[in-house]
Amino acid sequence: MILIPIGRVRSRWREQKGTPIQPSVSRGRARVEIDPPYREALADLDGFDRIWVVAWLDRAKGFETKVVPYLDTELRGLFSTRAPARPNPIGISCVVVSSVDPHSGIIQTGPTDLLDGTPVIDVKPYVPWFDAFPGTRTGWLDEGGEGRESADDRFEAP
Amino acid sequence: MILIPIGRVRSRWREQKGTPIQPSVSRGRARVEIDPPYREALADLDGFDRIWVVAWLDRAKGFETKVVPYLDTELRGLFSTRAPARPNPIGISCVVVSSVDPHSGIIQTGPTDLLDGTPVIDVKPYVPWFDAFPGTRTGWLDEGGEGRESADDRFEAP
Repeated sequence: MILIPIGRVRSRWREQKGTPIQPSVSRGRARVEIDPPYREALADLDGFDRIWVVAWLDRAKGFETKVVPYLDTELRGLFSTRAPARPNPIGISCVVVSSVDPHSGIIQTGPTDLLDGTPVIDVKPYVPWFDAFPGTRTGWLDEGGEGRESADDRFEAP
Repeated sequence: MILIPIGRVRSRWREQKGTPIQPSVSRGRARVEIDPPYREALADLDGFDRIWVVAWLDRAKGFETKVVPYLDTELRGLFSTRAPARPNPIGISCVVVSSVDPHSGIIQTGPTDLLDGTPVIDVKPYVPWFDAFPGTRTGWLDEGGEGRESADDRFEAP
Protein backbone atom coordinates (compact mmCIF):
# COMPACT_ATOMS: atom_id res chain seq x y z
CA MET A 1 0.00 0.00 0.00
CA ILE A 2 2.26 2.73 -1.37
CA LEU A 3 0.85 6.16 -2.14
CA ILE A 4 1.92 8.27 -5.07
CA PRO A 5 1.43 12.05 -4.94
CA ILE A 6 -0.83 13.32 -7.72
CA GLY A 7 -0.26 16.99 -6.95
CA ARG A 8 0.23 19.61 -4.26
CA VAL A 9 -1.77 22.15 -2.27
CA ARG A 10 -0.86 25.81 -2.57
CA SER A 11 -2.15 27.83 0.36
CA ARG A 12 -1.29 30.73 2.64
CA TRP A 13 -0.65 28.36 5.57
CA ARG A 14 3.03 27.57 6.24
CA GLU A 15 2.95 25.84 9.63
CA GLN A 16 0.31 24.21 11.82
CA LYS A 17 0.33 27.01 14.38
CA GLY A 18 -2.36 29.49 13.44
CA THR A 19 -3.79 27.39 10.60
CA PRO A 20 -7.59 26.91 10.73
CA ILE A 21 -8.51 23.41 11.86
CA GLN A 22 -10.96 22.80 9.00
CA PRO A 23 -11.98 24.50 5.73
CA SER A 24 -15.32 25.47 7.33
CA VAL A 25 -13.54 27.81 9.76
CA SER A 26 -10.85 28.96 7.30
CA ARG A 27 -10.66 32.02 5.04
CA GLY A 28 -9.10 33.22 1.80
CA ARG A 29 -8.45 31.15 -1.30
CA ALA A 30 -6.16 28.27 -2.19
CA ARG A 31 -5.44 25.97 -5.07
CA VAL A 32 -4.62 22.39 -5.89
CA GLU A 33 -2.01 21.76 -8.60
CA ILE A 34 -2.43 18.37 -10.26
CA ASP A 35 0.57 16.74 -11.97
CA PRO A 36 0.53 16.16 -15.77
CA PRO A 37 -0.25 12.39 -15.85
CA TYR A 38 -3.51 12.98 -13.96
CA ARG A 39 -4.81 16.23 -15.47
CA GLU A 40 -7.16 14.61 -17.99
CA ALA A 41 -9.02 13.11 -15.00
CA LEU A 42 -10.15 16.64 -14.03
CA ALA A 43 -12.67 16.73 -16.90
CA ASP A 44 -16.29 17.30 -15.79
CA LEU A 45 -15.25 18.37 -12.28
CA ASP A 46 -16.16 22.05 -12.80
CA GLY A 47 -19.87 21.30 -12.46
CA PHE A 48 -19.46 20.35 -8.81
CA ASP A 49 -19.71 23.02 -6.08
CA ARG A 50 -17.38 21.16 -3.75
CA ILE A 51 -14.67 18.51 -3.79
CA TRP A 52 -12.90 16.29 -1.30
CA VAL A 53 -9.18 16.90 -1.27
CA VAL A 54 -7.57 13.74 0.12
CA ALA A 55 -4.09 14.65 1.32
CA TRP A 56 -1.05 13.19 3.04
CA LEU A 57 -0.47 15.37 6.10
CA ASP A 58 3.32 15.35 5.82
CA ARG A 59 4.02 17.79 8.65
CA ALA A 60 2.15 15.73 11.28
CA LYS A 61 4.11 13.95 13.99
CA GLY A 62 3.68 10.31 15.05
CA PHE A 63 0.34 9.36 16.55
CA GLU A 64 -0.80 8.77 20.12
CA THR A 65 -3.99 6.81 20.78
CA LYS A 66 -5.43 9.56 23.00
CA VAL A 67 -5.09 13.26 22.34
CA VAL A 68 -6.51 16.55 23.52
CA PRO A 69 -8.28 17.79 20.36
CA TYR A 70 -8.37 21.47 19.44
CA LEU A 71 -12.08 21.66 20.18
CA ASP A 72 -11.85 20.27 23.71
CA THR A 73 -9.68 20.34 26.82
CA GLU A 74 -9.85 16.63 27.70
CA LEU A 75 -8.06 13.54 26.37
CA ARG A 76 -10.15 11.78 23.71
CA GLY A 77 -9.68 8.63 21.65
CA LEU A 78 -7.76 9.63 18.52
CA PHE A 79 -10.34 8.11 16.13
CA SER A 80 -13.04 10.30 17.70
CA THR A 81 -11.03 13.36 16.64
CA ARG A 82 -9.84 14.86 13.38
CA ALA A 83 -6.30 15.43 14.70
CA PRO A 84 -3.70 15.18 11.88
CA ALA A 85 -1.25 12.91 13.78
CA ARG A 86 -2.76 9.50 12.89
CA PRO A 87 -1.44 5.99 12.12
CA ASN A 88 -1.86 6.99 8.46
CA PRO A 89 -1.81 10.80 8.36
CA ILE A 90 -4.54 11.21 5.76
CA GLY A 91 -6.79 14.24 5.72
CA ILE A 92 -10.13 14.66 3.96
CA SER A 93 -10.96 18.32 3.34
CA CYS A 94 -14.21 19.44 1.78
CA VAL A 95 -13.48 22.64 -0.15
CA VAL A 96 -15.43 24.91 -2.47
CA VAL A 97 -14.45 24.73 -6.16
CA SER A 98 -14.02 28.09 -7.90
CA SER A 99 -12.59 26.83 -11.20
CA VAL A 100 -11.00 23.75 -12.74
CA ASP A 101 -8.50 23.85 -15.62
CA PRO A 102 -7.57 20.37 -16.89
CA HIS A 103 -4.93 21.93 -19.21
CA SER A 104 -2.84 23.52 -16.43
CA GLY A 105 -3.98 21.09 -13.75
CA ILE A 106 -5.08 23.92 -11.46
CA ILE A 107 -8.16 23.74 -9.26
CA GLN A 108 -8.90 27.13 -7.70
CA THR A 109 -10.66 26.62 -4.38
CA GLY A 110 -12.18 28.40 -1.45
CA PRO A 111 -10.63 28.32 2.03
CA THR A 112 -8.55 25.30 3.05
CA ASP A 113 -7.04 23.88 6.23
CA LEU A 114 -4.11 22.32 4.33
CA LEU A 115 -0.55 23.58 4.62
CA ASP A 116 1.26 24.91 1.57
CA GLY A 117 3.04 22.07 -0.25
CA THR A 118 0.93 19.24 1.22
CA PRO A 119 0.93 16.20 -1.15
CA VAL A 120 -2.49 15.48 -2.65
CA ILE A 121 -3.33 11.80 -3.12
CA ASP A 122 -6.90 11.97 -4.42
CA VAL A 123 -9.62 14.35 -5.55
CA LYS A 124 -13.26 13.28 -5.39
CA PRO A 125 -16.52 15.08 -6.18
CA TYR A 126 -18.63 16.02 -3.15
CA VAL A 127 -22.03 14.34 -3.55
CA PRO A 128 -24.65 15.26 -0.91
CA TRP A 129 -26.48 11.98 -1.55
CA PHE A 130 -23.34 10.13 -0.36
CA ASP A 131 -21.75 12.67 1.98
CA ALA A 132 -24.24 15.10 3.56
CA PHE A 133 -25.84 14.04 6.84
CA PRO A 134 -26.78 17.20 8.74
CA GLY A 135 -27.95 16.96 12.30
CA THR A 136 -26.11 13.78 13.23
CA ARG A 137 -24.83 13.48 16.81
CA THR A 138 -21.18 14.30 17.42
CA GLY A 139 -20.32 12.83 20.81
CA TRP A 140 -17.97 14.95 22.91
CA LEU A 141 -18.33 17.80 20.44
CA ASP A 142 -22.03 18.07 21.37
CA GLU A 143 -21.01 18.63 24.97
CA GLY A 144 -19.69 22.02 23.94
CA GLY A 145 -16.26 21.84 25.51
CA GLU A 146 -14.00 24.83 25.24
CA GLY A 147 -11.73 24.82 22.24
CA ARG A 148 -10.02 26.69 19.47
CA GLU A 149 -10.62 26.93 15.71
CA SER A 150 -6.99 27.44 14.78
CA ALA A 151 -4.19 24.97 15.36
CA ASP A 152 -1.11 25.18 17.55
CA ASP A 153 1.98 22.96 17.32
CA ARG A 154 0.74 20.03 19.40
CA PHE A 155 0.51 17.65 16.39
CA GLU A 156 3.46 19.00 14.41
CA ALA A 157 6.66 17.02 13.77
CA PRO A 158 9.68 18.67 15.42
CA MET B 1 4.13 7.62 1.89
CA ILE B 2 3.54 4.03 3.00
CA LEU B 3 0.20 2.99 4.43
CA ILE B 4 -0.22 0.55 7.27
CA PRO B 5 -3.51 -1.32 7.70
CA ILE B 6 -5.17 -0.58 11.05
CA GLY B 7 -7.94 -3.16 10.59
CA ARG B 8 -10.34 -4.80 8.18
CA VAL B 9 -13.93 -4.50 6.98
CA ARG B 10 -16.26 -7.47 7.50
CA SER B 11 -19.25 -7.32 5.19
CA ARG B 12 -21.56 -9.46 3.09
CA TRP B 13 -19.99 -8.20 -0.14
CA ARG B 14 -17.44 -10.59 -1.70
CA GLU B 15 -16.87 -9.10 -5.17
CA GLN B 16 -17.57 -5.80 -6.85
CA LYS B 17 -20.34 -7.18 -9.03
CA GLY B 18 -23.63 -6.63 -7.24
CA THR B 19 -22.14 -4.57 -4.40
CA PRO B 20 -23.94 -1.27 -3.73
CA ILE B 21 -21.93 1.69 -5.02
CA GLN B 22 -22.20 3.69 -1.76
CA PRO B 23 -23.39 3.08 1.82
CA SER B 24 -26.40 5.34 1.15
CA VAL B 25 -27.79 2.79 -1.34
CA SER B 26 -26.64 -0.30 0.56
CA ARG B 27 -28.44 -2.53 3.06
CA GLY B 28 -27.77 -4.85 5.98
CA ARG B 29 -25.08 -4.49 8.61
CA ALA B 30 -21.31 -4.68 8.61
CA ARG B 31 -18.41 -4.21 10.97
CA VAL B 32 -14.92 -2.80 11.16
CA GLU B 33 -12.32 -4.81 13.12
CA ILE B 34 -9.50 -2.62 14.43
CA ASP B 35 -6.12 -4.22 15.23
CA PRO B 36 -4.85 -4.29 18.86
CA PRO B 37 -2.29 -1.43 18.69
CA TYR B 38 -5.02 1.03 17.66
CA ARG B 39 -7.99 -0.07 19.77
CA GLU B 40 -7.47 2.48 22.55
CA ALA B 41 -7.99 5.20 19.92
CA LEU B 42 -11.66 4.08 19.62
CA ALA B 43 -12.52 5.70 22.98
CA ASP B 44 -15.26 8.36 22.80
CA LEU B 45 -16.30 7.29 19.30
CA ASP B 46 -19.60 5.76 20.42
CA GLY B 47 -21.20 9.19 20.84
CA PHE B 48 -21.04 9.83 17.10
CA ASP B 49 -23.92 8.77 14.83
CA ARG B 50 -21.65 8.29 11.83
CA ILE B 51 -18.01 7.71 10.96
CA TRP B 52 -15.81 7.93 7.90
CA VAL B 53 -14.20 4.61 7.08
CA VAL B 54 -11.10 5.39 5.01
CA ALA B 55 -10.12 2.24 3.17
CA TRP B 56 -7.61 0.89 0.65
CA LEU B 57 -9.70 -0.52 -2.19
CA ASP B 58 -7.49 -3.54 -2.76
CA ARG B 59 -9.66 -5.24 -5.38
CA ALA B 60 -9.68 -2.23 -7.74
CA LYS B 61 -7.78 -2.41 -11.01
CA GLY B 62 -5.37 0.26 -12.31
CA PHE B 63 -6.85 3.64 -13.14
CA GLU B 64 -7.83 5.29 -16.40
CA THR B 65 -8.23 9.08 -16.56
CA LYS B 66 -11.72 8.81 -18.09
CA VAL B 67 -14.32 6.26 -17.08
CA VAL B 68 -18.01 5.55 -17.51
CA PRO B 69 -19.28 5.85 -13.92
CA TYR B 70 -22.02 3.62 -12.59
CA LEU B 71 -24.45 6.53 -12.45
CA ASP B 72 -24.02 7.57 -16.07
CA THR B 73 -23.54 6.16 -19.55
CA GLU B 74 -20.90 8.62 -20.81
CA LEU B 75 -17.13 8.90 -20.28
CA ARG B 76 -16.32 11.32 -17.44
CA GLY B 77 -13.10 12.60 -15.91
CA LEU B 78 -12.10 10.12 -13.18
CA PHE B 79 -11.81 12.81 -10.47
CA SER B 80 -15.43 13.81 -11.14
CA THR B 81 -16.48 10.26 -10.22
CA ARG B 82 -16.26 8.03 -7.15
CA ALA B 83 -15.02 5.04 -9.16
CA PRO B 84 -12.71 2.80 -7.04
CA ALA B 85 -9.94 2.44 -9.70
CA ARG B 86 -7.91 5.58 -8.88
CA PRO B 87 -4.18 6.56 -8.85
CA ASN B 88 -4.38 5.88 -5.11
CA PRO B 89 -7.36 3.53 -4.58
CA ILE B 90 -8.63 5.16 -1.40
CA GLY B 91 -12.30 5.14 -0.50
CA ILE B 92 -14.15 7.31 1.98
CA SER B 93 -17.37 5.71 3.19
CA CYS B 94 -19.74 7.43 5.57
CA VAL B 95 -21.43 4.72 7.64
CA VAL B 96 -23.82 4.65 10.59
CA VAL B 97 -22.30 3.55 13.91
CA SER B 98 -24.32 1.00 15.89
CA SER B 99 -21.76 0.27 18.62
CA VAL B 100 -18.08 0.65 19.39
CA ASP B 101 -16.09 -1.72 21.62
CA PRO B 102 -12.52 -0.52 22.25
CA HIS B 103 -11.74 -3.79 24.05
CA SER B 104 -12.44 -6.10 21.08
CA GLY B 105 -11.76 -3.42 18.48
CA ILE B 106 -15.14 -3.98 16.83
CA ILE B 107 -17.24 -1.18 15.38
CA GLN B 108 -20.68 -2.45 14.42
CA THR B 109 -22.03 -0.39 11.56
CA GLY B 110 -24.98 0.09 9.26
CA PRO B 111 -24.80 -0.68 5.55
CA THR B 112 -21.48 -0.42 3.74
CA ASP B 113 -20.20 -0.39 0.16
CA LEU B 114 -16.89 -1.99 1.16
CA LEU B 115 -15.95 -5.54 0.22
CA ASP B 116 -15.28 -8.11 2.92
CA GLY B 117 -11.61 -8.03 3.94
CA THR B 118 -10.89 -4.52 2.68
CA PRO B 119 -7.95 -2.96 4.61
CA VAL B 120 -8.98 0.00 6.76
CA ILE B 121 -6.42 2.82 6.97
CA ASP B 122 -8.27 5.40 9.06
CA VAL B 123 -11.45 6.00 11.03
CA LYS B 124 -12.70 9.55 11.59
CA PRO B 125 -15.79 10.95 13.29
CA TYR B 126 -18.43 12.42 10.97
CA VAL B 127 -18.92 16.07 11.92
CA PRO B 128 -21.72 17.91 10.06
CA TRP B 129 -20.02 21.26 10.72
CA PHE B 130 -17.04 20.01 8.64
CA ASP B 131 -18.67 17.50 6.32
CA ALA B 132 -22.38 18.18 5.61
CA PHE B 133 -23.18 20.46 2.70
CA PRO B 134 -26.64 19.53 1.43
CA GLY B 135 -27.92 21.01 -1.79
CA THR B 136 -24.57 21.57 -3.46
CA ARG B 137 -24.42 21.16 -7.25
CA THR B 138 -23.14 17.83 -8.57
CA GLY B 139 -22.26 18.43 -12.22
CA TRP B 140 -23.06 15.55 -14.53
CA LEU B 141 -25.01 13.82 -11.74
CA ASP B 142 -27.50 16.71 -11.76
CA GLU B 143 -28.20 15.97 -15.42
CA GLY B 144 -29.90 12.78 -14.32
CA GLY B 145 -28.18 10.35 -16.67
CA GLU B 146 -29.19 6.72 -16.55
CA GLY B 147 -27.24 4.59 -14.14
CA ARG B 148 -27.11 1.80 -11.64
CA GLU B 149 -26.79 1.70 -7.85
CA SER B 150 -24.93 -1.60 -7.70
CA ALA B 151 -21.53 -2.27 -9.19
CA ASP B 152 -20.42 -4.58 -11.99
CA ASP B 153 -16.87 -5.73 -12.72
CA ARG B 154 -15.71 -2.73 -14.79
CA PHE B 155 -13.28 -1.47 -12.10
CA GLU B 156 -12.23 -4.86 -10.70
CA ALA B 157 -8.71 -6.27 -11.02
CA PRO B 158 -8.65 -9.48 -13.09
